[in-house]
Amino acid sequence: MQELTISLNPKSKVPLYEQIYHYIKQDIQRGRIRAGEKLPSGRALSACLEVSRSTVDLAYEQLLSEGYLESVPCKGYYVCQIEDLCHFKEETEERMPVLPGKEDFCAYDFTPRGIDLEGFPYGTWRKLTRNILLDDNKELFQLGDPKGEWELRETITRYLYQARGVKCSPKQVVIGAGNDYLLLLLSVILGTDHRIAMETPTYKHAYQIFEQLGYALCTVPMDASGMEVSALEDSGARIAYVMPSHQYPLGIVMPIKRRLELLSWASREEGRYIIEDDYDSEFRYKGKPIPALQGTDQREKVIYIGTFSKSIAPAIRISYLVLPNGLLGSCEETLLSFSSTVSRIDQMTLNHFLKDGHFERHLNRMRTIYGRKHEILLGELKKLSGICKVTGERAGVHLLVEFTNGMTEKEAIARARAEGVRVYPLSEYEIGASKPRSGEGVTVILGYATLSEEELFEAVKRLAGAWHAP
Amino acid sequence: MQELTISLNPKSKVPLYEQIYHYIKQDIQRGRIRAGEKLPSGRALSACLEVSRSTVDLAYEQLLSEGYLESVPCKGYYVCQIEDLCHFKEETEERMPVLPGKEDFCAYDFTPRGIDLEGFPYGTWRKLTRNILLDDNKELFQLGDPKGEWELRETITRYLYQARGVKCSPKQVVIGAGNDYLLLLLSVILGTDHRIAMETPTYKHAYQIFEQLGYALCTVPMDASGMEVSALEDSGARIAYVMPSHQYPLGIVMPIKRRLELLSWASREEGRYIIEDDYDSEFRYKGKPIPALQGTDQREKVIYIGTFSKSIAPAIRISYLVLPNGLLGSCEETLLSFSSTVSRIDQMTLNHFLKDGHFERHLNRMRTIYGRKHEILLGELKKLSGICKVTGERAGVHLLVEFTNGMTEKEAIARARAEGVRVYPLSEYEIGASKPRSGEGVTVILGYATLSEEELFEAVKRLAGAWHAP
Repeated sequence: MQELTISLNPKSKVPLYEQIYHYIKQDIQRGRIRAGEKLPSGRALSACLEVSRSTVDLAYEQLLSEGYLESVPCKGYYVCQIEDLCHFKEETEERMPVLPGKEDFCAYDFTPRGIDLEGFPYGTWRKLTRNILLDDNKELFQLGDPKGEWELRETITRYLYQARGVKCSPKQVVIGAGNDYLLLLLSVILGTDHRIAMETPTYKHAYQIFEQLGYALCTVPMDASGMEVSALEDSGARIAYVMPSHQYPLGIVMPIKRRLELLSWASREEGRYIIEDDYDSEFRYKGKPIPALQGTDQREKVIYIGTFSKSIAPAIRISYLVLPNGLLGSCEETLLSFSSTVSRIDQMTLNHFLKDGHFERHLNRMRTIYGRKHEILLGELKKLSGICKVTGERAGVHLLVEFTNGMTEKEAIARARAEGVRVYPLSEYEIGASKPRSGEGVTVILGYATLSEEELFEAVKRLAGAWHAP
Repeated sequence: MQELTISLNPKSKVPLYEQIYHYIKQDIQRGRIRAGEKLPSGRALSACLEVSRSTVDLAYEQLLSEGYLESVPCKGYYVCQIEDLCHFKEETEERMPVLPGKEDFCAYDFTPRGIDLEGFPYGTWRKLTRNILLDDNKELFQLGDPKGEWELRETITRYLYQARGVKCSPKQVVIGAGNDYLLLLLSVILGTDHRIAMETPTYKHAYQIFEQLGYALCTVPMDASGMEVSALEDSGARIAYVMPSHQYPLGIVMPIKRRLELLSWASREEGRYIIEDDYDSEFRYKGKPIPALQGTDQREKVIYIGTFSKSIAPAIRISYLVLPNGLLGSCEETLLSFSSTVSRIDQMTLNHFLKDGHFERHLNRMRTIYGRKHEILLGELKKLSGICKVTGERAGVHLLVEFTNGMTEKEAIARARAEGVRVYPLSEYEIGASKPRSGEGVTVILGYATLSEEELFEAVKRLAGAWHAP
């Protein structure tokens, strides 16, 4: 019979049964009570510790459940034979959380990734969310459709048709928490044993995702119309990743001729697909948005991917895939296997945001805000026309500055940096073999979404100082 | 020179420039204007249509942008050479949305998947969300940490230590939109070129996910302690997927001896891992929750996965991985490649829900609610003791009913169905070669989370009628 030395603390927040349980468990783990030893009966231990019988019983039952004790009928509780107790020998040190490093600060940051949140209709979003959260919407807290809420998919279908010329039915639409997730899902649908062709420079983040997913990747040269289709044909790629409405980062709009050539390429062989990333087509400062390639596709070859992260807010993790009908049949099982990654509350909030006209108003407001910034930036950059030229400025929320005076990216970035302005190297977006060595390009990217109008004036003034310097 | 016949509608909501653009575009697409033809000058067309010059210019510029026209300096606008115009020949039929089918209805559904949402603190969740959405939290609408908000990861780390005995630092925690997504992410981290061992019966959904991801899968027999480690050793698997705190669906709690054996197995070879799915350990009706296997792991072999979908609400798409430090180093790049799938608003709402004690109160309330249902169901099922026995009833929100009178699953389900009660076959959860043919088992699953107390009384009464019938 094992003598237990347990000193209970009746004032502790830890219940008495739990204190007893911990004492015995530790004694077993540390080898102070050995396998096969008998523990005192519940009655005896409760008398000894001056606690109720049920307190001791609870502690014993927990130890039984976890496998430290076994109960032998009519005899009592015995310590189990546990071989690998060495596991408990070393005590783990306290693992302190490590705080993440703060990025170094720059007064004027032309980041091409952010968006202007001044225009975000917090009030509306809050009100819509509040309404969705009302008690009579309890059903919304249950798991929804793996492909996303049907109502939202209907609304997106209508929006895409009207705004982007995309032709689809809601059943082709799959809602997911961000483009990265959807590319991940797509890799499950298509498999990763084929080559993806990308332009260079391109949206580097997508490239990294494909790389992580284990795809073979190749680069295809671009001309002024975008990806060269003859080179694509030669590349052996089965999938082409393109941004026809506004190539990132160059800003090229793919003309209809090239679009049709690209569609022809895809039609020529079974299993070829075009991934159309329509990431920021909403913002265009002259004329109406360029229609999506998907709307021209008659042969079910375009996989369309769009997002509300850019047009509403990055934290709203809602993107969508539009799958060709031909592909849909074979991947329905996969789609149904993965539960939706977007909360139904967010989906319904977005649905109302779109349906009630808030999104359209929001886009118009943002077009005005970005349009003004765009104009200011272009106007101010004219003062630098002796040393650089501006391209890719027709849409989106970034433009390119190419130096014509022999200054390299690296130098331009360092000089800007010294004046407290951060600009980004175009060469960072180059991929594949043609990638110039870091900093050797002559073009930098200026994203202007997150800077205010006043900041833009000041930032370009500083850039002029930095880049005009002898 | 091409004569254009354009009839404009000044009363239409469509801007005039867009009407002109559409007319010309259609004419090109349908071959009515041919490649190489010259269009009227902007001045001429504006005079002819009696619209302003800038209206025509806008239309022409849009057509230029999309590549239908090209501008020849000092000469004018010409229609481009576009080879594949056949693409436009066939007109797509209107693709009507197909409404999803409604599942057939059953008065009393013992679904093991749902949860009781009566206890969900809508008011609190709404209030927390509202506070998060206040204007001064604008930063929250920018993209957050790919691995999840640091604050939430800290809170989860503390919660896991206190409630589950999981030892980790926030840097090991990765937040994701649901378990399915995290298993997908894990497949990118670990690669899919190795075998995963699973118990049978098991959580079928995880099995299907692994199957979709292209893993080789094998089944390992279970005894009363869970997965048999000698059979696991023989299986050649590199990863074991287990639910040590409460095996689904059998409800087995893995005793400490078996846990240590399992950890020893993992330690014996480089690259072996245990995925611990701790899906519903919060609900236990006697004693305290069984600690997680992860807390016993001293050799960085356990990948822990947990979720708030079960304990809060399925629509709250927040799960988390706890990665071993050893693995973390090699997969940091992958983790940073994929943007977070959970909105920061939801993350911060959950963070406050946890930190302010709402979660603990919610869990206690749910334990009481489920505990009462559990008691009622067990009490009522006693009346059927002649024909079946109940197992797996110590935790979670489901139990198993095994027929001892020779009745098969199939028969039991059909009879219950005739009385308006739906119960679920255990055999559906069997995987691999040992899987009995559908309906031939003798055990059914009863999930009781979604049924009210009154419904439980009535449902078991109907089951008694159904199963006692001659």
